[in-house]
Amino acid sequence: MEQMSGLNKYGYSYKFVYFNGYSYFCFMDKKQSLYLQIADNIEHQIKNDVLKIGDKLPSLRTICSEKGVSMNTASQAYLELESRGLIESRPQSGYYVSYSPKHSRKIPQTSQPIVANREDTPELILDAISYNLPKAKIMLSTTLLSPELLPIAKLNKSIIEATRTLPNSGVNYDRAGSIKLKTQIAKRSLAWGGKLQADDIIPTGGSIDSISYCLLSLTNKGDTVAVESPIFFGFIRLAQSLGLNVLELPSSPITGIDVDALKDAIETKNVKIVILVTNFSNPTGSCMPNEHKKAVVQLMEKHNIPLIEDDIYADLYFGNHRPVSCKTYDESGIVLWCGSFSKTLVSGYRVGWVSAGKFKEQIARTKLYHSMASSTITHEAIGNFLEVGRYEHHLRKLRLTLHRNSLQFQRCINEYFPDDTKVTRPAGSLNMWVELNKNINTIDLYNKAMAHKISIAPGRTYTLHNQYNNCFKLSYGLIFTPEIENGMKKLGELVKGMGS
Amino acid sequence: MEQMSGLNKYGYSYKFVYFNGYSYFCFMDKKQSLYLQIADNIEHQIKNDVLKIGDKLPSLRTICSEKGVSMNTASQAYLELESRGLIESRPQSGYYVSYSPKHSRKIPQTSQPIVANREDTPELILDAISYNLPKAKIMLSTTLLSPELLPIAKLNKSIIEATRTLPNSGVNYDRAGSIKLKTQIAKRSLAWGGKLQADDIIPTGGSIDSISYCLLSLTNKGDTVAVESPIFFGFIRLAQSLGLNVLELPSSPITGIDVDALKDAIETKNVKIVILVTNFSNPTGSCMPNEHKKAVVQLMEKHNIPLIEDDIYADLYFGNHRPVSCKTYDESGIVLWCGSFSKTLVSGYRVGWVSAGKFKEQIARTKLYHSMASSTITHEAIGNFLEVGRYEHHLRKLRLTLHRNSLQFQRCINEYFPDDTKVTRPAGSLNMWVELNKNINTIDLYNKAMAHKISIAPGRTYTLHNQYNNCFKLSYGLIFTPEIENGMKKLGELVKGMGS
Repeated sequence: MEQMSGLNKYGYSYKFVYFNGYSYFCFMDKKQSLYLQIADNIEHQIKNDVLKIGDKLPSLRTICSEKGVSMNTASQAYLELESRGLIESRPQSGYYVSYSPKHSRKIPQTSQPIVANREDTPELILDAISYNLPKAKIMLSTTLLSPELLPIAKLNKSIIEATRTLPNSGVNYDRAGSIKLKTQIAKRSLAWGGKLQADDIIPTGGSIDSISYCLLSLTNKGDTVAVESPIFFGFIRLAQSLGLNVLELPSSPITGIDVDALKDAIETKNVKIVILVTNFSNPTGSCMPNEHKKAVVQLMEKHNIPLIEDDIYADLYFGNHRPVSCKTYDESGIVLWCGSFSKTLVSGYRVGWVSAGKFKEQIARTKLYHSMASSTITHEAIGNFLEVGRYEHHLRKLRLTLHRNSLQFQRCINEYFPDDTKVTRPAGSLNMWVELNKNINTIDLYNKAMAHKISIAPGRTYTLHNQYNNCFKLSYGLIFTPEIENGMKKLGELVKGMGS
Repeated sequence: MEQMSGLNKYGYSYKFVYFNGYSYFCFMDKKQSLYLQIADNIEHQIKNDVLKIGDKLPSLRTICSEKGVSMNTASQAYLELESRGLIESRPQSGYYVSYSPKHSRKIPQTSQPIVANREDTPELILDAISYNLPKAKIMLSTTLLSPELLPIAKLNKSIIEATRTLPNSGVNYDRAGSIKLKTQIAKRSLAWGGKLQADDIIPTGGSIDSISYCLLSLTNKGDTVAVESPIFFGFIRLAQSLGLNVLELPSSPITGIDVDALKDAIETKNVKIVILVTNFSNPTGSCMPNEHKKAVVQLMEKHNIPLIEDDIYADLYFGNHRPVSCKTYDESGIVLWCGSFSKTLVSGYRVGWVSAGKFKEQIARTKLYHSMASSTITHEAIGNFLEVGRYEHHLRKLRLTLHRNSLQFQRCINEYFPDDTKVTRPAGSLNMWVELNKNINTIDLYNKAMAHKISIAPGRTYTLHNQYNNCFKLSYGLIFTPEIENGMKKLGELVKGMGS
């Protein structure tokens, strides 16, 4: 960190602090109380776009030594800025700018999905976009972590360790599943009130695998599965392939499924099963408040309807704690809690699980009948990885990166997209949902962006019906580079050029 | 090899040859033509139980040097013995005793399975026996290779190689599947006329996984699936869990499904799909003759009924060549050819495949929707393993071991079991099907044997109906030790004690 200081033409002392490639300009007004003076200086910089959304602020220690103030004063200044809604603290990392009044964008409304008149837009095209990862240089379409964010060398170590410690190096079927893995998953559940034991965990080849076993076990062709809307296309395709009716329900991009709408659907529409991504859903990033989670579990219990809770993003929270799950409130075993490491650590190993409550026996048998066993080595490797604490270490870094990325993406949208753009502000995970002017079709935008090697995920893929055509999902599980910034800028230009 | 020779009291010269732990007694009759003299000597020993089923004979070279005859004479002698049905040659290994006139057991008849009045015997008990590998010291119940028969160190090498050569060490989804693996599987198909390309291969997590995708794609609840009987319990459980009717058809323990019975069923019973293990089926070990395979494919084509060919044992042939598959005769793409490495190399890696003919797109989508992708590293590792020729090398040794084991097991049954015992004589793989006296219930036998830490697979698990109660399956994918011999002896005693 370099510093440069002096007196400006009004007689105020100032400093430039160079930090993280940015220069911070600091007024030193002696008339104010010290902490307010510091806070005002920083607010001034934020309001004048010197400090932008996502920028990291100097540490408290830096503020102290640089301004010659006490730690108490520095910390008061930052508290003041937090209370003004200008900055956010990140546990174990520091403080970040979170506000940009000049450009701030609205959040999309609660969805009012179309449920009748299903229109079969070309599934194959949607599939191509959804599943066949487009060959883009700037990949903003897939909810996947870029390899640079993954602890690959350590994962390799865990693989080799698994071949060393497993009986016969893991060449045999492991029908019961890695006890090490199951123990670690159960242990982690204590933190959010899951109260699970190793024995409650059925390892699977990933979360979609888990949900497949749940649907195979508990539904029949023609049954109705209720989901939030918009919803991860994988659920739609899976349910369709099993001949289920998918009932899309109104959902808030902040609080997830509309509980009243769900209640109404359950009471009037013969819902057989419900799937919810309760924490940081894909695509909107919504997170259900605790009371909603509790209410949904009570609703399921009352009507004896199983809830498949796909909880694969919860570990990617930006706040101080992992949000709880519906499973936390599940006393009767009505919740089939599904998870995986595909979105937080490694997708290629195919490691997921389901804790199926009172349906445990059924699900275990379905898994056995359809796939016999999971991959012994990769499951044990993840068990190792968790056991030695590598996962927690990795998550701490990852959350920080994703939080910063989310703020950078907010900033880019504020700067480069039209004023009527709306965007969600997820409190975790790696997705945000963008709503453009009604006249813009995001499949067109997708094609235009792909010509510049930029991929986005059109909103139309997240519903069975002809809607969300002006929306798209952005994923930011990447290293935020100037190239990404330019990609977002180009995307904004393309949107502007489409005449909103 | 040690030798001891002399003249017996009749003036014949003789030799004892010690080989493989057995002593071979050889007459040297000068009155006969030399090769017949050698052949007669050996026949004498076989008929007097000096040489037993499964015993390895001295090599041609040994015969030459030991008896001072030419290679031609030695080889004529063995040809003579082969033509008498007393010995069998094993490619690249040598000659084995295959006959024991004193004790030889009959082969079971073609099955005439019950198809009506399905009786639900306790499924959970059957499941427990079938899936929860019983904790036996002498494990004869599961169609699995003992780890001692597996090239574990080389497999570990391939795993490490995969982490080195895969992009990002294989941490990412590989939705298309390992191209290396697909190429190798396709290449191997050339040997039996499969004519497949890498692109035809859809990698899966094992053969049962493949069949699950096929049934999910091509059947609906209430449809009828025709199968041979007895049949691998996994097919029954899978089909049941999907609400399919399982139609068990008469099958020969030598030639597999009764083609006329299949034809009849197709013409009268609204069969939607057929599953056959065409080569060395589980449990009987039957292998369909080429004409039967051809006829079945034609039948399927005529009625446009998909055939799921589970071909996981074909590489374990005892003869000179891998038998062909139904896929060999499939011009129209009606055959969904499924395979895996679980029965020949490694089950814990979860590597199988399906080449789905004209149903390729459907099956690929079902796989994508239900499981997204296979385990990247383990699939690539098997690709490596095949590419460098390790698989072929392993198979050569394995086939030899299994063939010898099959002969040893035949011998044990001949020696230790009651005279009315029937047993199949598979020409490949690791299973044989034993039929006891009608009065013996093999679930009782199972329980008695388990008290001695010996596990067998009761016949009742291989059918939905109340039949095959006097049958059981033996698997011999193991190292044949005196302990195994004692286990077989104990099993025979138990059977005898059950009052046949």
